[in-house]
Amino acid sequence: MVRCIAYLGPAGTFTEAAAKQHNSKAILQPLASIPGVALAVASKIAEEGVVPIENSLEGSVTDTLDILISQAQLFIRRELVLPIDHCLLVMSSTTASDIQVIYSHPQALGQCREFLERCFPKAHLVASLSTAAAVGDMKDSKLPAAAIATHRAAELNNADVMAQGIQDNRSNMTRFVVLGNTDQPPTGNDKTSLCFSFAEDKPALLYSVLGEFAQRNINLAKVESRPTKQSLGEYIFLIDIHGHRENTPVKEAIDALKQQSSMLRIFGSYPRWDQGEPH
Amino acid sequence: MVRCIAYLGPAGTFTEAAAKQHNSKAILQPLASIPGVALAVASKIAEEGVVPIENSLEGSVTDTLDILISQAQLFIRRELVLPIDHCLLVMSSTTASDIQVIYSHPQALGQCREFLERCFPKAHLVASLSTAAAVGDMKDSKLPAAAIATHRAAELNNADVMAQGIQDNRSNMTRFVVLGNTDQPPTGNDKTSLCFSFAEDKPALLYSVLGEFAQRNINLAKVESRPTKQSLGEYIFLIDIHGHRENTPVKEAIDALKQQSSMLRIFGSYPRWDQGEPH
Repeated sequence: MVRCIAYLGPAGTFTEAAAKQHNSKAILQPLASIPGVALAVASKIAEEGVVPIENSLEGSVTDTLDILISQAQLFIRRELVLPIDHCLLVMSSTTASDIQVIYSHPQALGQCREFLERCFPKAHLVASLSTAAAVGDMKDSKLPAAAIATHRAAELNNADVMAQGIQDNRSNMTRFVVLGNTDQPPTGNDKTSLCFSFAEDKPALLYSVLGEFAQRNINLAKVESRPTKQSLGEYIFLIDIHGHRENTPVKEAIDALKQQSSMLRIFGSYPRWDQGEPH
Repeated sequence: MVRCIAYLGPAGTFTEAAAKQHNSKAILQPLASIPGVALAVASKIAEEGVVPIENSLEGSVTDTLDILISQAQLFIRRELVLPIDHCLLVMSSTTASDIQVIYSHPQALGQCREFLERCFPKAHLVASLSTAAAVGDMKDSKLPAAAIATHRAAELNNADVMAQGIQDNRSNMTRFVVLGNTDQPPTGNDKTSLCFSFAEDKPALLYSVLGEFAQRNINLAKVESRPTKQSLGEYIFLIDIHGHRENTPVKEAIDALKQQSSMLRIFGSYPRWDQGEPH
């Protein structure tokens, strides 16, 4: 049976590239929102779902964190890290000197600010809903226009790539996660993601919890907080640690954490992204 | 001399309400972005600037955190907490049964989802740049329309308030900060905000740093992380603690923290928001 994998669409975005890299043979189903992808996986319409979780410039994708916190049946099965390489797209009749309007998602416009100021100081910058939607906006534009989008979006739309790698910061990377209804068995080089909160509003308890990991020499890869949505100033903490939840040091630390927290949810254990994996 | 206070505009947003509550006699200057407000204060065009920093449902306003991290001359002088009370606005000729389109900022549409599904299941929801801009979009709409915005936006635009308090969650509060070129002297009930990072990528060092506060019984009100923007997986930690940086326990802890971190920046010490302050 061919697998169906949902992803945050539309086609031609970086998330589609991550989904293709995860499984090049599956049927890929673009959905309009991160909660939509989560719902498709939870209801088993899709076997897996691919969503962005963190960018090296913008930080966490809070919609993804909030879905992981609230959807108890969803697990992280894999992480993938992709470089974010922005291209300037035009329709073939347009030259650089023609361009009066440039469309893209506000984050992409922000990530290419230096390029835009240097090369197109007079162009009018207009926000689109996604980098892929920007290509449609460019096509519909009455004034000569360009779009900042992926190389793949150029292919899908018969557009020309006028310039590529136009982002200001070369270290622009996004981490994606593959969501499913189970996590993965130990591989020997794993990561575990989880969240917890405390009944009493004492963030000093965080110190005690981090001690459970520090005392067992468990490496902490990330610490993040999200609002409980109950009251301003109350938080849920999200952490990534090295190791698998079924293996001894991590298992012990999580058991100790259960004693101290009022809520604990494990998002899953999954293989750590290997820098050497092919892009 | 009358003071000039910049704020994240346009007029009629919740940030304007926070700026008015901060200083009802000042000249208020709306600016289009959070970096714009920061620049106005840093360049002394404005004496102070008011921006949102955290919402009880959406979490941190990352633009504000990133400005505090990068702008060494800016300090937090005050915090204010305001309830976010959304209203449904229409022009006087429009009745509830007429409404076909509802405009607002995507966050506001999300915060009123239950109300919209219950009362306007067939209305087309359209994103605007801000709740204030939504009122302009409503006025320009060819179809009968409404906007979700503030009570103040209704006054400014001669619009009618058809319903108020339409947000799904009653505990929708936003914390705003007043930025200036200095912070405040001790009052006896203060808060200190700061950020730090480590040269080595060892988030376990966070445990050691939190220990400096825990051992001195300094209450930790918030812990947050932001990307360094250098490399994926490297973070700057932001914390809020109770107490003033000039007073003994906090001063000692910060001195100890300086020894352990590669970068430390104090955003300022300022009076803690008092629940009893008039709204």
